Amino acid sequence: MKLEGSPARTIERAADGWRVTIIDQTRLPHEIERVTLASVDQAAHAIRAMQVRGAPLIGVTAAYGLALALRSDPSDAGLAQAHIFLAEQRPTAVNLRWALDEVRTAVARLPERERAEAAYMRADRMADDDVETCRRIGAHGLEIIKAASAAKGGRPVNVLTHCNAGWLACVDWGTATSPIYQAYDAGIALHVWVDETRPRNQGASLTAFELSQHGVPYTLIVDNAGGHYMQQGEVDLCIVGTDRVTASGDVANKIGTYLKALAAHDNGVPFYVALPYTTIDWSLTSGADIPIEERSADEVLKVAGRLADGSVDSVAIAAEGTPARNPGFDVTPARLVTGFITERGVTPATREGLLSLYPERKERAA
Amino acid sequence: MKLEGSPARTIERAADGWRVTIIDQTRLPHEIERVTLASVDQAAHAIRAMQVRGAPLIGVTAAYGLALALRSDPSDAGLAQAHIFLAEQRPTAVNLRWALDEVRTAVARLPERERAEAAYMRADRMADDDVETCRRIGAHGLEIIKAASAAKGGRPVNVLTHCNAGWLACVDWGTATSPIYQAYDAGIALHVWVDETRPRNQGASLTAFELSQHGVPYTLIVDNAGGHYMQQGEVDLCIVGTDRVTASGDVANKIGTYLKALAAHDNGVPFYVALPYTTIDWSLTSGADIPIEERSADEVLKVAGRLADGSVDSVAIAAEGTPARNPGFDVTPARLVTGFITERGVTPATREGLLSLYPERKERAA
Repeated sequence: MKLEGSPARTIERAADGWRVTIIDQTRLPHEIERVTLASVDQAAHAIRAMQVRGAPLIGVTAAYGLALALRSDPSDAGLAQAHIFLAEQRPTAVNLRWALDEVRTAVARLPERERAEAAYMRADRMADDDVETCRRIGAHGLEIIKAASAAKGGRPVNVLTHCNAGWLACVDWGTATSPIYQAYDAGIALHVWVDETRPRNQGASLTAFELSQHGVPYTLIVDNAGGHYMQQGEVDLCIVGTDRVTASGDVANKIGTYLKALAAHDNGVPFYVALPYTTIDWSLTSGADIPIEERSADEVLKVAGRLADGSVDSVAIAAEGTPARNPGFDVTPARLVTGFITERGVTPATREGLLSLYPERKERAA
Repeated sequence: MKLEGSPARTIERAADGWRVTIIDQTRLPHEIERVTLASVDQAAHAIRAMQVRGAPLIGVTAAYGLALALRSDPSDAGLAQAHIFLAEQRPTAVNLRWALDEVRTAVARLPERERAEAAYMRADRMADDDVETCRRIGAHGLEIIKAASAAKGGRPVNVLTHCNAGWLACVDWGTATSPIYQAYDAGIALHVWVDETRPRNQGASLTAFELSQHGVPYTLIVDNAGGHYMQQGEVDLCIVGTDRVTASGDVANKIGTYLKALAAHDNGVPFYVALPYTTIDWSLTSGADIPIEERSADEVLKVAGRLADGSVDSVAIAAEGTPARNPGFDVTPARLVTGFITERGVTPATREGLLSLYPERKERAA
């Protein structure tokens, strides 16, 4: 997608061929600042500090992080240590472990001197695959928006999304936003309700930002408002991303997703979850088994933004010493999900639905 | 309740007997600043700018505002004009109109020279009545918390509340918080989940503040998190306030209340609404008929708080030019409400339930 009018990816190899360039997403939308990662520690920091976020982008960043680690220490011990270190940065995102496992598999049997280069190649391919996967998710989701548009006689389709499952969360296109971008590019009238997404405000700072850069009409609302607009008939469908989907169709996503799914269900609004196959955790059969990351209370107690003089700072919204809790995710039960939009098509949020798109998993399970 | 260790009311006549002192709630929790109102314009500003907020306190402030107006112009025309002017400051709160009507009734047949004093007397009585009403709401709600405590064998009862229906929203005690304060004073172990309540953060800045001043254990969470804690079994009951209840039991309250009611219903968590009789709008039979105030987009786009140097400022959370919408309230259908806690007792959220507590209304309707 476009950033400041030019096509860009969220993660790319630097000109020197070995360092890795990302966009510091903690500075958006106030500043567009690129950061260069030159070590596994810097890659881990980028993941933990959420300079990169979103399941697919976390995965690709971790893959490059492992390549950077192998550049310094290509031994078996070095590989194992870096794998563990990177995996523990964000415990909920299953893509992180998947990406690390992929790179490890690609390099484990190679001589030490070949490992770093092989890891880079695997990470490159992972990035390219993600772009293609997201493009396909969008192509399938586009059909849903087309149908909604036809049902409304061409009046703008109102899509609600939560958090940022946009191109900033991936390498390009995004997951939840890919159908939106493709519908917009196809000339379909649409409008996006963007949930602010406290505590880190990824909706306000990232989704709103990237939609505006692409020209898609949108309106920012607080997380509390989505249910009201559904009651008023002003939401035609919801599309969100996810950090982990169980084999039974339960969905872990940014905290608050469950509340929007409840409201969609109560008002007959279709609720779709867009995801690449890497987000499916076939080992889990219940959302209750997904570990929910508890993040720093400071994210609740402080809000970052731009002061009148243009500088970026954060303000404390509660009295000093206020206790706070900060679960990063919640689990939306499959019964509240209308369907999954994956790179292979659209399917009900059930074990059978998922297996119909991924029959190779059925064979493994059998 | 206590403010800085001393008993205080949220609105009182000043030492000169005619001006009215309030706490500027837009400065809390960062500064405790009292403001003196000397004219109807200042009273209207206090209501509109939310220096005072909460249905009962808005009503009492409007009543004193009418008294201040009559002090300058006690004519019929002056009375009518001030009534209209004050009523339009917050269109959703039914207490505002009720309070203004009460004062008008009290003064309309009096000679002009007696009107201002009569208005003050009516406003004084309204304030005293509110304290007693809130105390009674708390006494009835206390029984619900007592029962929850007994069911848990005395382990802490976890109560979730949204926005601020606390003593800062009333003259004393609060509505939703009155059962909490009375349970705490009675030695019942309890803990309150405080929703931040974007966009204006009344939970973070007011409810958290007043609970801490009284010593009640609480934890601040973002609005997105309540559903997750209900899924986890960490919420035993919800108690919220309301700005208007229809005769059929639909509840208008701060935006986001509907989402919490949905989550409570989905998880079998009792969801109570605490209210004084003045909040019931007997003229409405459907929540769809309650006018929903659309407030400034700036409330969504900017967050106020305390900078590291202690000064209070606001930060913009989205890029410049971001479009935003800001509905102030939503409507929770009666089917999601376990019961109403009023000054006369606890009753189901139905027409029959309300009429059982207010049988005098049945006679009027007949």
